[in-house]
Amino acid sequence: MPDQKRPDRNATCAIIGAGDFIGSAIAHKFATEGYTVFAGRRTAEKLEKLKSEIEAAGGKCVARGLDARREEDVTAFLQEADAHAPLEVVISNPGANVNFPLLDTSERVFFKVWEMACKAGFLTGREAARLMLARGKGSIFFTGATASLRGGSGYAAFASAKGGLRLLAQAMARELGPQNIHVAHLIIDAGVDTDFVRDRIKSARGEEAVAALAPDTLMEPASIADAYWYLHQQNRDAWTFEMDLRPYKETW
Amino acid sequence: MPDQKRPDRNATCAIIGAGDFIGSAIAHKFATEGYTVFAGRRTAEKLEKLKSEIEAAGGKCVARGLDARREEDVTAFLQEADAHAPLEVVISNPGANVNFPLLDTSERVFFKVWEMACKAGFLTGREAARLMLARGKGSIFFTGATASLRGGSGYAAFASAKGGLRLLAQAMARELGPQNIHVAHLIIDAGVDTDFVRDRIKSARGEEAVAALAPDTLMEPASIADAYWYLHQQNRDAWTFEMDLRPYKETW
Amino acid sequence: MPDQKRPDRNATCAIIGAGDFIGSAIAHKFATEGYTVFAGRRTAEKLEKLKSEIEAAGGKCVARGLDARREEDVTAFLQEADAHAPLEVVISNPGANVNFPLLDTSERVFFKVWEMACKAGFLTGREAARLMLARGKGSIFFTGATASLRGGSGYAAFASAKGGLRLLAQAMARELGPQNIHVAHLIIDAGVDTDFVRDRIKSARGEEAVAALAPDTLMEPASIADAYWYLHQQNRDAWTFEMDLRPYKETW
Amino acid sequence: MPDQKRPDRNATCAIIGAGDFIGSAIAHKFATEGYTVFAGRRTAEKLEKLKSEIEAAGGKCVARGLDARREEDVTAFLQEADAHAPLEVVISNPGANVNFPLLDTSERVFFKVWEMACKAGFLTGREAARLMLARGKGSIFFTGATASLRGGSGYAAFASAKGGLRLLAQAMARELGPQNIHVAHLIIDAGVDTDFVRDRIKSARGEEAVAALAPDTLMEPASIADAYWYLHQQNRDAWTFEMDLRPYKETW
Repeated sequence: MPDQKRPDRNATCAIIGAGDFIGSAIAHKFATEGYTVFAGRRTAEKLEKLKSEIEAAGGKCVARGLDARREEDVTAFLQEADAHAPLEVVISNPGANVNFPLLDTSERVFFKVWEMACKAGFLTGREAARLMLARGKGSIFFTGATASLRGGSGYAAFASAKGGLRLLAQAMARELGPQNIHVAHLIIDAGVDTDFVRDRIKSARGEEAVAALAPDTLMEPASIADAYWYLHQQNRDAWTFEMDLRPYKETW
Repeated sequence: MPDQKRPDRNATCAIIGAGDFIGSAIAHKFATEGYTVFAGRRTAEKLEKLKSEIEAAGGKCVARGLDARREEDVTAFLQEADAHAPLEVVISNPGANVNFPLLDTSERVFFKVWEMACKAGFLTGREAARLMLARGKGSIFFTGATASLRGGSGYAAFASAKGGLRLLAQAMARELGPQNIHVAHLIIDAGVDTDFVRDRIKSARGEEAVAALAPDTLMEPASIADAYWYLHQQNRDAWTFEMDLRPYKETW
Repeated sequence: MPDQKRPDRNATCAIIGAGDFIGSAIAHKFATEGYTVFAGRRTAEKLEKLKSEIEAAGGKCVARGLDARREEDVTAFLQEADAHAPLEVVISNPGANVNFPLLDTSERVFFKVWEMACKAGFLTGREAARLMLARGKGSIFFTGATASLRGGSGYAAFASAKGGLRLLAQAMARELGPQNIHVAHLIIDAGVDTDFVRDRIKSARGEEAVAALAPDTLMEPASIADAYWYLHQQNRDAWTFEMDLRPYKETW
Repeated sequence: MPDQKRPDRNATCAIIGAGDFIGSAIAHKFATEGYTVFAGRRTAEKLEKLKSEIEAAGGKCVARGLDARREEDVTAFLQEADAHAPLEVVISNPGANVNFPLLDTSERVFFKVWEMACKAGFLTGREAARLMLARGKGSIFFTGATASLRGGSGYAAFASAKGGLRLLAQAMARELGPQNIHVAHLIIDAGVDTDFVRDRIKSARGEEAVAALAPDTLMEPASIADAYWYLHQQNRDAWTFEMDLRPYKETW
C-alpha cells in the first residue's frame, strides 16, 4: 500500500465524535501515523485519557469539548485545527443508536437523533469541505451502520437519520470528488467489542453467551480504524466511496 | 382488481401536502371513490379551488391550512379527520425539492428541507399509525423521489431528507405491516406535467424543446394518483412497500 | 384506474411458465379481461385443467408444451401467439427455487437453475421485444423473488440466476421503454399459498403451525395476478419498473 | 495496517483471468508480498511476460493456460496451486464487457458472456472454497463492475452476468464467512488506464480528449491491486464484503 499520505510535515486529522471506542481508535491510528489529532466530543474531560495515551506514545493530540450539533462549535473546532496545521482528514463519528417503537418516538427524540446522526455530519462535512477546497485536497469520512441501508422495525428515528447521512455523504462525494476531496462512508455492520455490547448480550442471552463468544466475534475498534487509514491512503485514481465491515461470524 | 376497499360508509382520506399537482390529483381520486377527503396544505386559500372542484363533482372535501412541520397542526388535522369518520388512508406528500452547491447550503436550509421532506412525514405517519392501530387497519403512503435512493451532486439537503424519509417509511412498514397497517413508499422518478416544469425546460433548452415534448413525456398527476389508489386496493396478502413511476421516455 | 388497455379486439397474452399457481392465476386474469391467453409450460397435459377452466368461464386459451430454455420453442410459441392476434402482453414466470450448500451445487445444477431462472427470461423477453417493436407497443413482465436482490446462504445458484434476471429486465426496460414497450420486474417476497408451501411449513414447524396460519399470511396467486394486470393498465406517462409484493405479516 | 497475513512460509495465490491489466497487477502485488502466484488465463503464451517480470523481481510465478469456463481446467489449476503450497488467496477476474442492442444479442453471446462473467466465478469460488475449508481459512475475491449493480441500455448480457456474479459472491460470503473464508466483491466503476480505453476515448471524443485527460482520470491497475491486498490483510473481526473503486474525477 502506498503511504505517500503520511504527512512529511505537521498536518491535522480532526475527529468529531471521538468516543471511547471507534473514535479513539481512529485517533490513535492517525496520531501514530504522524498527524496531530484534534479530538472533539461533548465532554472535554472524557478526552483526557485519549490525549494522555496518545502523548505517552509520542503523538500529538488537542482535545476540545464541543456539541457536534452546533454550527459554531463545529466551525470553530475545524478552523482551529486547520489554523494549527493543514487539515487533511476529517472524520464524522457521533453515535446515536436508539430503538423505540414508533408510537414511543417523541418528536424530540426524532429530532435529536437526526441532529446527532445526520445534521452533525452535514455541519462537519460542509466546514471540512470549505477548508479543504481552499487547499485543493483532503479526506472526509463518515461512520455509517446497518441502519444506513435498512429501516428495521423500531428504527424509525435512527434509520431515518443514518439513511439521511448516507445520501448526504453520497451527494458530497459526487460534488467534491472531482475537486480532489475524498468522501467516503463506512458501514459498520455489527457490534463493536465494548462493555456496553457485552452487557447487552449478557442481559439478552445470559452470562454463558458472553463467555462463549468466539474470538473476533465482535469488532475491535482498532480494526475499524485500519479501514479509515486505508481509505485515506488510497490513490485518487481508485477511491472508494463505500465499504462495509463486519465480523466473520456475523450473519447478515 | 378487487375494489372491496371502496368505503360503503363514510370514511376519510387525509392528504398532507395537498398541492396543486400530485396532492390534488390524489384528492380527486379518493373523493371520486367515495372518501371524504381532508386536504391540508400551508395556505388554506389555495385549497379553495380543489374543494370546489371536488364538491362540484359530487364529492366531499374538508380543507385546512396547516404547517406539516408542526406536531400540533398535524395531530389536530388527522384527529379531526378521524373524528369526522374513520381515517382509512393518509398520504404524506409535502414537497421540498431544492438543489444547492454544498457550500451554499446554509444550516437553516438543511434543516428546513429536512423538516418538510422528512420530519413532516414522521409526524404524519406516527399520528396516522396511532389512530389506525386503534381501529386495526389503514393505509399510510409516502411520496418519494429519485433523490430518495441517490445523492446526486447538489442534493446534499434534499437527498438526505428524502433518503431519511424512505428508511422511516421502511421502518414503519416493518413495524406496522403485521398490525394490518399498509405502509408504502412511491418513487416518483421524473417531472410532473406542470407549468413550473415546462418553464424550467424552456429556460434550459428553449421554447422549441417545450413544443417538441412528445406526448406522455411528463407525468400526469392523475396517473400518479392511480398508483396510490391501486396500492390502497391491494389485498393484504400481497402488499407492496415500494414502487417507482416514470414516463416511458425517461432515461434513468 | 383507466382500462383503455382491455382489448376491444382479439389480442393475445402469452405466459411462459404457466404453472399451477402464479402462472395460472395470471392466465385467468388476462382471459377474464378479454385476452386470448397462450399458456406455455413443460408438460402440455398439465395445462388441460387451466384451459378448460378458462373456457368454461367464457375465455379463450391456447395451451402449448414447451421448454422455456430452448430458443426454438420460445420463438415458435410467441410467434404463434402473435400470428393468432397481436401479442400485447408477455409474462416470463418459470420457477426454479432451490437451496443447496455451495459444495453440493454441481455445475449441472448451477447451469440448469440459470437456464430456467435467467436464460429463459432472456429468450422470452428478446422475442417478445422483436414482435412488439414491429407493432410499437406491448408489456413484458418478469417474476422475481427475494433472491433477486439478496444472495442468502445456500442460494448461490438461485440468487445468482434471479439477480441476473433482474438486471436483464432493467437493461431491457432502459432500452425498450423509450420505444413504448413496458418492461417490469415483480419481486414476490414470500410463499404463495400452495399445498407445497403448507407441507413445508408442516415438516418444519408441525401440523399446528399450519392450522395456526393467520388468514392472508400466505399469498393468493390471484392477488399477485392483480398486480400484473395493474402494471399492464398503467398509462405510459407513469410506468413502474419494479414493485415488491409480500403478505402483511411477513417480516423482511 | 496489520500485515500478519504476509506468509511466513510458502503459500499460493491463484488468479483466474490474469489479464494484462488488473489481473497482472494483482499478480505482481501478491508476488511482491511473498506469495507464489499461480496465474491462469486462456492463452498460456500471453502469461510469459508477467511470469518473467515477477521472476526478475525475485518473485515466484507459475503460469498456466486454462479455460475459466471449464470445470476440469479450473479444478486442476486450483488443485495444483494448493498441492504446491497452501492456497490462501483466490481471485476471479475474467473479463467479458460487451454492449449490444437486445435484438442483436444472440443466444450464443448471452450464454458466453454468462459463462465468462458468472459461471467461471462459480467454478472458481466453489473449488477454492472446497480447498480452503479443508484448511479452515482463505480469501476469495471477485472483480465486479458498474454493471454488477445496474442494467444499462445495451447491457442485457453483461449486466445480467455481472449481477448474477455479485449475488453468487454474496451467497458465498454468507455461507463461508462464518467458516473463516473471506469472500469479497469489488466494484470497479470506471475505465482502467489501457491502450484500449484510450483508443475508445479517441474514437469517441478525438485525439485532444486523450491528450487532455487529467492525471489519475483513469485507474492504474496497481491501485486496484492495492485494494485486493488490503482486503486480504483485514482482520476477520472486520471483514469487508463489498467496496467500490473509481477515479476522483468520475461522475457516477
